[in-house]
Amino acid sequence: MLGAGASLSRLLRRYPPQFLQKRLLRGGRLRVREALSAQPQGCDVRVQGWVRSVRSQKEVLFLDINDGTSLQNLQVVADPKLESRDLCFGSSVDVQGKLVKSHHRKQNVELQAEDIRVVGSCDSIAFPFKLKERHAADYVRQFPHLRCKTNRFSSLLRIRSEATAAIHSYFQDNGYVHIHTPVISSNDCEGAGELFQVETPSKPSEPGGNSHFFDVPAFLTVSGQLHLEVVAGAFSRVFTFGPTFRAENSQSRRHLAEFYMVEAEISFTESIQDIMQEMENLFKVATAAILSRCHEDVELFHKYVAPGHKDKLDHMLKNKFVIMSYSEAIEVLKKAPEVFSFKPEWGCDLQKEHEKYLVKHCANIPVFVINYPYDLKPFYARDNVDGPQHTVAAVDLLVPEVGELYGGSLREERLHILQSRLDRYLELRQFGTVPHGGFGMGFERYLQCILGVDNIKDVIPFPRFSHSCLL
Amino acid sequence: MLGAGASLSRLLRRYPPQFLQKRLLRGGRLRVREALSAQPQGCDVRVQGWVRSVRSQKEVLFLDINDGTSLQNLQVVADPKLESRDLCFGSSVDVQGKLVKSHHRKQNVELQAEDIRVVGSCDSIAFPFKLKERHAADYVRQFPHLRCKTNRFSSLLRIRSEATAAIHSYFQDNGYVHIHTPVISSNDCEGAGELFQVETPSKPSEPGGNSHFFDVPAFLTVSGQLHLEVVAGAFSRVFTFGPTFRAENSQSRRHLAEFYMVEAEISFTESIQDIMQEMENLFKVATAAILSRCHEDVELFHKYVAPGHKDKLDHMLKNKFVIMSYSEAIEVLKKAPEVFSFKPEWGCDLQKEHEKYLVKHCANIPVFVINYPYDLKPFYARDNVDGPQHTVAAVDLLVPEVGELYGGSLREERLHILQSRLDRYLELRQFGTVPHGGFGMGFERYLQCILGVDNIKDVIPFPRFSHSCLL
Repeated sequence: MLGAGASLSRLLRRYPPQFLQKRLLRGGRLRVREALSAQPQGCDVRVQGWVRSVRSQKEVLFLDINDGTSLQNLQVVADPKLESRDLCFGSSVDVQGKLVKSHHRKQNVELQAEDIRVVGSCDSIAFPFKLKERHAADYVRQFPHLRCKTNRFSSLLRIRSEATAAIHSYFQDNGYVHIHTPVISSNDCEGAGELFQVETPSKPSEPGGNSHFFDVPAFLTVSGQLHLEVVAGAFSRVFTFGPTFRAENSQSRRHLAEFYMVEAEISFTESIQDIMQEMENLFKVATAAILSRCHEDVELFHKYVAPGHKDKLDHMLKNKFVIMSYSEAIEVLKKAPEVFSFKPEWGCDLQKEHEKYLVKHCANIPVFVINYPYDLKPFYARDNVDGPQHTVAAVDLLVPEVGELYGGSLREERLHILQSRLDRYLELRQFGTVPHGGFGMGFERYLQCILGVDNIKDVIPFPRFSHSCLL
Repeated sequence: MLGAGASLSRLLRRYPPQFLQKRLLRGGRLRVREALSAQPQGCDVRVQGWVRSVRSQKEVLFLDINDGTSLQNLQVVADPKLESRDLCFGSSVDVQGKLVKSHHRKQNVELQAEDIRVVGSCDSIAFPFKLKERHAADYVRQFPHLRCKTNRFSSLLRIRSEATAAIHSYFQDNGYVHIHTPVISSNDCEGAGELFQVETPSKPSEPGGNSHFFDVPAFLTVSGQLHLEVVAGAFSRVFTFGPTFRAENSQSRRHLAEFYMVEAEISFTESIQDIMQEMENLFKVATAAILSRCHEDVELFHKYVAPGHKDKLDHMLKNKFVIMSYSEAIEVLKKAPEVFSFKPEWGCDLQKEHEKYLVKHCANIPVFVINYPYDLKPFYARDNVDGPQHTVAAVDLLVPEVGELYGGSLREERLHILQSRLDRYLELRQFGTVPHGGFGMGFERYLQCILGVDNIKDVIPFPRFSHSCLL
């Protein structure tokens, strides 16, 4: 069935041999992606999927079918007598026929149907998506249980899956151990508010009494850092990649109540440069992998969702990221011709408008801002002991449009400087403390950054935010 | 530094070239695992890690150091004058010296130290673990922030990391798309109780008023199945691997409030056999990968934690899993010479004691029990329409010691049979419904099954259960 040479090796790259063999043994069942890259020789095959378009002509019936394995559909050519009332946009079908070379420029193969069975019909009046219409993201977002049936969102899901795999591979290839840090925690890593509390409905917390399920108040984690630091006391490189939570009462296009974070800790690291090198490598290596593995899907975004974004991304990948101290950044902002809503001042947090300006100032190359004022960063950031401008070895990576993509720091490993802090945290420094540092990257922001998607709700399968927990 | 031939290719298998090159460029810094598999030629290297043992003799000082990259330590040989008061069990060190061939049988290389810097000391009185003592699991569990410094738990973490990677690889290699199903959900998949509720502490739910953060009561997910089914309406194979939650008020060695589940959905599947084949393949392929990648770590468990477990596991891997209908299972139990606390009866759930007997009856080969009574399984399991003994196409996989490892079913895709159920769930069948099925596997139970660990709290980094949310 498969031609030798280039096409087979292409298939084998995509699908390992045991997968293909199994498929072919099962009565010629092929998935759309396999069919599209096969060398057609008129073999009998069976393909199942959902109808993405129907075009009925006098002498011939054309169907496009898709099964989620690729953006491209498989064209089915059939005798019009195989048409039925149930065979419509959105219905699921099981097609048997011969895979042959196509005469059309745009496709390599087509499936000449001998039998078309409608597996599940689709009520086209009730179905919210219409044939050949490109629906606005706002509209599509109203149907969390159906939006994976659109081209754009199915591309997003494939990219998200490959991005997850690429990030795991980066860490594995570089000797990191993956740690499942807990979702439920009795700590609050950042000392910040905005926490979700976790309790059994039957056991409300009574004043004075202790009726908590865990005996103590428990929260959804805002970061896996503390737990990673625990493990970094015995493993020189660890990472976690899981959901984190903020109860921010915001409906903005920038906020989610549940989002994914990639976090890493590296022991025996004495310089913030090492941490930045890892951040930059992760960004570039993972992105290159995604671009090569999901070329078509990424192209959909760069062509229709964010035209011009491809050049911006290439620019980010080609250039060495810029490094700038917080103090320099403040100087740049003070000299800026722009009028900011918040006046830039040493000791104040960088605002969104400041971040945007800094990235523009650096020719839209991502920029590391390092050495922040002591008072702006959490207690665990390592003191630079550099008075009079007292700073810590913390770093944020700013990228075009998205703003802060990563945050990281060297961690304070010196017991005497940490005195008077969290007990358990101190104990981590008591038994073989080591200089270490780490970083966290917002996974949804990363996807926004590489794809040019402006609403964070459009890069996560089931968004949760204030007033909304659909499905 | 590295010899050509066998050793280099071994290293390259473990660490891709870009990793090794980067390491070697950084002033000869090597990680313990790299040092152990290097071909020593007296090169200058620098190794950092934690001291696992100190043996001071008149003319020579021996150190074992470990950095989490392998179970095996690197032996450091030094002049006794390099010894210091801070150089003790648990302290962290930075050693410079020459990597040479060792004369000892048990090791290939040793590090002849020229300089030993103690990076962080370790108060051996306060440190809960003692040199050369093998501490009981119950004792070690009391120190969630330090137990990764023990041999056994660091092996567990490496195995867990590799097991996670092996499971992801299995699905990727077989054309599945990875979906991040949400942790916070307004549904209750199983219709079961035992849910954790999620709320902001400042916004308690008031009777009559609507002050929920999400406008509706929200819970921690008990399963990603519903969300996977949503995506399985456009993707023929999807999987998820993330935390799930049960508020079971149990301190038993079998329960966790937060645990990991591997779940998959497969569309266009008309037979429960296809689902079982995937379950069996996943178990065998992932386990084979773990056994080959973490040989030493797994051996520690099979040698010291669960002697004899290696043979049991080999037996599971070598044999085709048994398939038995629920009705047959009940017959087997009724004929059993054993006296059960719960009398086996058609229509009643299988109890732990029944599961154990069935596995024993099948010569300790994992056994699929299929076709359960309609009333025992959730509404979404596919009706076999087989009266008078009305059953559904559901399956559980029972394994030695652990009991139920997987649960799965064909899902009811027929709209008319599902009428009068959940609205959204129905709508999934309205637009191109397809026969599909799926399964879920408890990841901790899987680790218990392959390692022979009897307490579930010992296979997860930070266990959460009733009355306990340490760290």
